[in-house]
Amino acid sequence: MLYPTPIAKLIDSFSKLPGIGIKTATRLAFYTIGMSDEDVNEFAKNLLSAKRDLTYCSICGNLTDDDPCSICQDETRDSSVILVVEESKDVSAMEKIQEYRGKYHVLHGLISPMNGVSPDDINLKTLITRLMDGEVTEVIIATSATADGEATSMYISRVLKPAGIKVTRLARGLAVGSDIEYADEVTLLRAIENRTEL
Amino acid sequence: MLYPTPIAKLIDSFSKLPGIGIKTATRLAFYTIGMSDEDVNEFAKNLLSAKRDLTYCSICGNLTDDDPCSICQDETRDSSVILVVEESKDVSAMEKIQEYRGKYHVLHGLISPMNGVSPDDINLKTLITRLMDGEVTEVIIATSATADGEATSMYISRVLKPAGIKVTRLARGLAVGSDIEYADEVTLLRAIENRTEL
Repeated sequence: MLYPTPIAKLIDSFSKLPGIGIKTATRLAFYTIGMSDEDVNEFAKNLLSAKRDLTYCSICGNLTDDDPCSICQDETRDSSVILVVEESKDVSAMEKIQEYRGKYHVLHGLISPMNGVSPDDINLKTLITRLMDGEVTEVIIATSATADGEATSMYISRVLKPAGIKVTRLARGLAVGSDIEYADEVTLLRAIENRTEL
Repeated sequence: MLYPTPIAKLIDSFSKLPGIGIKTATRLAFYTIGMSDEDVNEFAKNLLSAKRDLTYCSICGNLTDDDPCSICQDETRDSSVILVVEESKDVSAMEKIQEYRGKYHVLHGLISPMNGVSPDDINLKTLITRLMDGEVTEVIIATSATADGEATSMYISRVLKPAGIKVTRLARGLAVGSDIEYADEVTLLRAIENRTEL
């Protein structure tokens, strides 16, 4: 026995987190023991509460502590546009820029034939249900610019276009602040294709 | 509000840990939500238990769930040697090599005149008390090879030597597997000074 049981167990819990190996887990566990009682109690409470009180919005699939989520409930937002993202984190990233005022739809995954993830495995059916009443005029696809993201984007676009809904996706091009010298070929190609007039 | 309150609070708790910024904290919090109920409950329980059930051994100062600690209670260990370390983690590091069979003493800090840490601020008095009965014949100082570690080591040695106790410290030299080319000058100097006959 190298560590007393309580600390060995805590190290074990920390090391289950992604990107945290046994050395970091040990450091975190010892640090935790040195924290105030209040902070540790708060930490434990927050862990349980995050797991217990959070649910997925029945409309858009976003993580929320209130169903429907605050964005779906917000009547000042534009209900004619839906922005489709992979994860709840992406909703937060979008909200941070305080520019988009429409609604969201969270897929909880991407279609990935390589990994056996089919369109039925992600939160796609409810998106189609939401488009039924004809209120939505545009669907913006904001999946990552990866192979799976592109596949998902193509699939959604093919399903929705026949219904007469405008389907757009985020622009591809040079990331702001990036150097042409280090841009990859596909990014440069997209940047030339999608060039804009000044 | 970017995140629902429960997740914002959990992100806050994670970001209080050392080396974990807001981005990593967010990643960990979202990962936690995806973990099984069982794992999260276990994590919360382990946090509380580590804080509640651990105490410091009244003899050696090591972290333990049982006072005195299992090492101090172990009568098969050599009570005539005490190895002095800075933190409980160092005891575990030593135990891992399964070579040392004496007792330990944990200082919970190092003397650091620069940071205003005096000998009275660390767990040093109890070490001197432990030496009173004359059973201990050697004190091995295993503080880090840093300025504070050296200062602490010098201080302890000056206090104990007049009492006729043999005071030693860990050897300084090349770390096994290290390259002479990249060794710093002080390490090389110590390695030459402390060279051993083959």
